[in-house]
Amino acid sequence: MRRVITLLTDFGTADGYVGEMKGVLLSLAPDAVVVDITHDISPQDIDHARLTLARVWRRFPKDTVHVVVVDPGVGSARAALAVLSDGRFLVGPDNGVLSPALLIAGVRAVELALPPGASATFHGRDVFAPTAAAIARGEPLEALGADAMRPVLRRTPEPMRRADGALEGEVILIDRFGNAVTNLVAPRGGTVEVANRQIHVRRTYAEVAAEMPVAVVGSSGLIEVAVRDGNASRTLGLERGSRVVLRTSS
Amino acid sequence: MRRVITLLTDFGTADGYVGEMKGVLLSLAPDAVVVDITHDISPQDIDHARLTLARVWRRFPKDTVHVVVVDPGVGSARAALAVLSDGRFLVGPDNGVLSPALLIAGVRAVELALPPGASATFHGRDVFAPTAAAIARGEPLEALGADAMRPVLRRTPEPMRRADGALEGEVILIDRFGNAVTNLVAPRGGTVEVANRQIHVRRTYAEVAAEMPVAVVGSSGLIEVAVRDGNASRTLGLERGSRVVLRTSS
Amino acid sequence: MRRVITLLTDFGTADGYVGEMKGVLLSLAPDAVVVDITHDISPQDIDHARLTLARVWRRFPKDTVHVVVVDPGVGSARAALAVLSDGRFLVGPDNGVLSPALLIAGVRAVELALPPGASATFHGRDVFAPTAAAIARGEPLEALGADAMRPVLRRTPEPMRRADGALEGEVILIDRFGNAVTNLVAPRGGTVEVANRQIHVRRTYAEVAAEMPVAVVGSSGLIEVAVRDGNASRTLGLERGSRVVLRTSS
Repeated sequence: MRRVITLLTDFGTADGYVGEMKGVLLSLAPDAVVVDITHDISPQDIDHARLTLARVWRRFPKDTVHVVVVDPGVGSARAALAVLSDGRFLVGPDNGVLSPALLIAGVRAVELALPPGASATFHGRDVFAPTAAAIARGEPLEALGADAMRPVLRRTPEPMRRADGALEGEVILIDRFGNAVTNLVAPRGGTVEVANRQIHVRRTYAEVAAEMPVAVVGSSGLIEVAVRDGNASRTLGLERGSRVVLRTSS
Repeated sequence: MRRVITLLTDFGTADGYVGEMKGVLLSLAPDAVVVDITHDISPQDIDHARLTLARVWRRFPKDTVHVVVVDPGVGSARAALAVLSDGRFLVGPDNGVLSPALLIAGVRAVELALPPGASATFHGRDVFAPTAAAIARGEPLEALGADAMRPVLRRTPEPMRRADGALEGEVILIDRFGNAVTNLVAPRGGTVEVANRQIHVRRTYAEVAAEMPVAVVGSSGLIEVAVRDGNASRTLGLERGSRVVLRTSS
Repeated sequence: MRRVITLLTDFGTADGYVGEMKGVLLSLAPDAVVVDITHDISPQDIDHARLTLARVWRRFPKDTVHVVVVDPGVGSARAALAVLSDGRFLVGPDNGVLSPALLIAGVRAVELALPPGASATFHGRDVFAPTAAAIARGEPLEALGADAMRPVLRRTPEPMRRADGALEGEVILIDRFGNAVTNLVAPRGGTVEVANRQIHVRRTYAEVAAEMPVAVVGSSGLIEVAVRDGNASRTLGLERGSRVVLRTSS
């Protein structure tokens, strides 16, 4: 069986860290198909990696192994995890980055034993890649370590319901296009207040003129603030944490 | 049969949009080989994507499926296309980005029906990836939609012949090395005038000293202006649209 | 047999040069597995490419073909090489970038004949990719060219032993995290002097507080200067060539 192993890191590619991981994977699991999700997470930005993982992990076929390495605590006492959730496997540090899979009912997680000789600075190569290869070769989760008792969880903040009935949320991510993704879930219609502007929630960017601000329900179901053919983050001065208030007319 | 599916987008990789597309492709076409062309086209730069596609699409084996998503008009009335040209398939928005394949004799193009439930903001995941997977599984073009009557075409501007016999063209692309690719086709010899300098057309960068400007016939057959071991765009102040005049001695 | 072909270049991906190479590889070696090491080496930075290659090339399975194209001298008289070293093949320009494999006992290297019609500016597509495909199809090295008599070698500078017993080395690379990799090999303990600071060599970043400088033995066995949860290059003003002095207590 051809198993897919994906990589999601903040390593960039130029320094060869990702190359080393790919070499280890293809040496230990020669039939695996190694797929890049990204290596361009900002260095040590666990929350960006977590949100990117949330988008992608269940799009892949069952039995896929996702290797996620954004790991500022490497070499500390933080645990290393292997997880089985909704039929996919995940491997990575126990710092909350795997939360999208850990928060699913029926999840199983084990704490990996460090192999002898593992470096103290590069578990991607010495712990996570060999573990992913072992899983791809059919090793069962219970052979990899003991049950993880209380894995670290990180959650996207929930919006608050205000006295006036509006929902108060925030920008959780600025994407490459400068779109500001919020933690507000799609209504039918409504208006968001952001950066002292009132912006209607539309079906698509194309409903406003070029260079105009627009709110849409993005492809992950969350409200995003955009500027058509432009960059909302720059134009409106939005950043992660910016406050966004949603009012629905109904 | 192992089918190749390539991806050419302006999504970057960090936000997971490309990861979602790969997940959809590998779920729907498990035997496909997914190959990255690039995800680093500048956001919404249709012409850069078109020129990159022009370089690569016929280098791939017959039956390759190229997925091209640079799509500022997503959610508007712009059509979505599947194309068969010179034995390769292409899938993408009808905004001119597929022109290199559409301008070939014998091309066939169909207008895709949007699947029910497709998001209004991410056709890469909801329209183009599933279509590419269907083609890779052997679905014939005519099953995907009705003939596209008049697809949008974008062309590189043609040089003009001036009264004095010189050809007047322009810079169509600045590449990563700062080389300025023009729309002037290779002569034997000649001189280009650019940024108030006269620069001889050489066979190779190495014919001038380090840090000196040089013109060569680039690997796609077009004249490029470079600075040896340097960056012509920065040094000579060149950008897309800069005027370039070619004089041949013959 | 499924052969792995890796790519390590300074081309970026946006302009399609890498896409062209992948197309050539998959056309000429349809069963090959093409793996990206990186395309983000700084333009023409042979030493960065050499150090990245040093990290990765032996992590891959035997019979892997590594294609390395950082090639400021393309079109000049510099030779083109195919190399067999420690069971892996390497293809690239004869400018020292392949030194990690050339400096291994038992290496064999041949000088490639340029195929007729090869462009003078893009040997990645016209020379190195076709050669890699030929090797992946089983072509023996001796069929590709005559023995290379004296390939160009580039070496990382050796540290110097000073009169007071200290070792004087330098920063050889700043990585994506801002860590300064030195040419000093791991001691047990010791102190490095860098940028007028004395920094203890620890087992891991986590042994110091956040934002504090720390030296560790990195995953390639060399001493690195880092700032925990920060960027040592920026904070300490380190760059390639910065002096680093190592004193061991024993």
